Amino acid sequence: MGPAAVTIATIAEAAGVSVPTVSKVLNGRADVAPATRARVEALIDEHHYRRRRSSPPPRAQMIDLVFHELGSAWDMEIIRGVEKAAREEGVSVVLAECGGAANPRQEWLDSALARRPLGVVLVFSDLDHPQRRQLEARSIPSVVVDPVGEPSHEVPAIGATNWSGGLAATRHLLDLGHRRIAMISGPVRAWCSRARTDGYRAALEDVGITPSPELVRHGDFKVEAGYREGLALLRLPDRPTAVFAGSDLQALGLYRAAAEMGLRIPQDLSVVGYDDLPVTQWIGPPLTTVRQPLAEMADHATRLVLQLARGESPASTRIDLATNLVVRESTAPLGPDKHRSLG
Amino acid sequence: MGPAAVTIATIAEAAGVSVPTVSKVLNGRADVAPATRARVEALIDEHHYRRRRSSPPPRAQMIDLVFHELGSAWDMEIIRGVEKAAREEGVSVVLAECGGAANPRQEWLDSALARRPLGVVLVFSDLDHPQRRQLEARSIPSVVVDPVGEPSHEVPAIGATNWSGGLAATRHLLDLGHRRIAMISGPVRAWCSRARTDGYRAALEDVGITPSPELVRHGDFKVEAGYREGLALLRLPDRPTAVFAGSDLQALGLYRAAAEMGLRIPQDLSVVGYDDLPVTQWIGPPLTTVRQPLAEMADHATRLVLQLARGESPASTRIDLATNLVVRESTAPLGPDKHRSLG
Repeated sequence: MGPAAVTIATIAEAAGVSVPTVSKVLNGRADVAPATRARVEALIDEHHYRRRRSSPPPRAQMIDLVFHELGSAWDMEIIRGVEKAAREEGVSVVLAECGGAANPRQEWLDSALARRPLGVVLVFSDLDHPQRRQLEARSIPSVVVDPVGEPSHEVPAIGATNWSGGLAATRHLLDLGHRRIAMISGPVRAWCSRARTDGYRAALEDVGITPSPELVRHGDFKVEAGYREGLALLRLPDRPTAVFAGSDLQALGLYRAAAEMGLRIPQDLSVVGYDDLPVTQWIGPPLTTVRQPLAEMADHATRLVLQLARGESPASTRIDLATNLVVRESTAPLGPDKHRSLG
Repeated sequence: MGPAAVTIATIAEAAGVSVPTVSKVLNGRADVAPATRARVEALIDEHHYRRRRSSPPPRAQMIDLVFHELGSAWDMEIIRGVEKAAREEGVSVVLAECGGAANPRQEWLDSALARRPLGVVLVFSDLDHPQRRQLEARSIPSVVVDPVGEPSHEVPAIGATNWSGGLAATRHLLDLGHRRIAMISGPVRAWCSRARTDGYRAALEDVGITPSPELVRHGDFKVEAGYREGLALLRLPDRPTAVFAGSDLQALGLYRAAAEMGLRIPQDLSVVGYDDLPVTQWIGPPLTTVRQPLAEMADHATRLVLQLARGESPASTRIDLATNLVVRESTAPLGPDKHRSLG
């Protein structure tokens, strides 16, 4: 017999519990002893049990949207995109956050199993293996937006062309005559930000510049990180004439650092951001930035998870949407005096 | 017999339909003819039918959070507050928006009736009478955050002390020596923004200044409105030396207008905002603003709607939390040259 023959009864027998008990675990009910529950979950995983589509339980017309940490304008763009797509598909959106942890909380997973959403969209966060298995066993598909983890074709994901974005931002600064170009990157653990940094390095190496390690700094994607790392860069004896920030919020922090150092943007310092949040048009000066199509990424992820929920097999479950450079007023050609001093 | 005796059977008889049909309407099911449905809803309203608590149907452990229009940093603060409070109460949050309309969409209401949330939190939007009755008939309570409508004790609501906020902002500018103080207000239809404008007027009148009509302008709470109305104010032959903006986002637009006019903040123009969004600390110069405790408002609203859902009778269902002035760097004393020119 193949694995298709694994039923709730198989699991119940192996676990030495009743069929209703396995059913309770599958349905996320709280009235199962933790030890029993753990044993049943382990067997569900081991046997690769999957609830069969032939007799689907009633499903709530909703999807879960889970954030790493909720709060920024970046998150708002994703929320808008998911809400809009879900509304068009006649589906409601349940919002949750991981509280800054790498994986969602168990309490969220328990509530999701009890609610039976059609699918789950994870933003800049990921399920660990047991969590993924628990959703899979209930035929609840998941899609990651802006994946943090190493690219893998197992996990459906919608991202953006991070490497190309880093390349375009840095080439723009090179074209303006800058040579001493710094980068404030995202967290080292995030592959999306590593790809941007590699794009930056590739652009520099392409014109024969060896990236200086002191010019690449890391932080999370928040304003404070841009301010802190920006100050460190601008205080270097041989300070950079241009900085590529890993996020628009970091760029905003860098603006503050430059103001405190008495440096004018773009006359004394060129700045490129990343994301193209609505606010970047309004800060002074308006920010040159790499646009990530956040609303489109959210839209794609929502429709993809609903396709998977309907049992369809999309042509591709791993898509990177294009990024593009938006030139505004925070970048300028390197002045002749700067060329001299760098002689 | 009193109104307490109104049952589903009463409604069914009056409508000339079966009891299961009334039940379907109550449960938000789609398989009822629109005309029948309208007739049943009208009778539910007319008879003040309310599902009795003695036999409550199973309720999903979730609340609905409905926005007027989703997208700003202001909305994000509310979302964070509601999500956190709901999480602490073991409840999930379903997110929806009205798409900029004054009342939620019927599609949202239909989905809510089918989902049976514990309650509904409405943000800067309100239910119309039939919508409110439809929720009441299912014993689904609702609470409004930052009510737009006229204050009424019928609708539970959590706001902030808008009048006091307007007063404090304007007094601060008066204390700095400003006399020609303009205001960019929110939409006229929003009572919360009328209260702020009245606080502004009261502060001026208190020191013997008659507010000049040309100095009070209206717009929505977005950046663009602050830019547009700001330009109009700064182009006046006798331009104001200080502006009180109805939102931080309007203040950001005003910053841009000032920059385009070659005016420095705060040397040439003092600016006070409203809200205290996180971004206001980072823009240049950091914004003096009236802090609305958005996270606390969201927290209060969430816990209030859950209290009502449990059938409790909170001491107060209409609360205004305190606002307070946060002085940063966008306001400065009126320079001696300005005093002369106004002499």
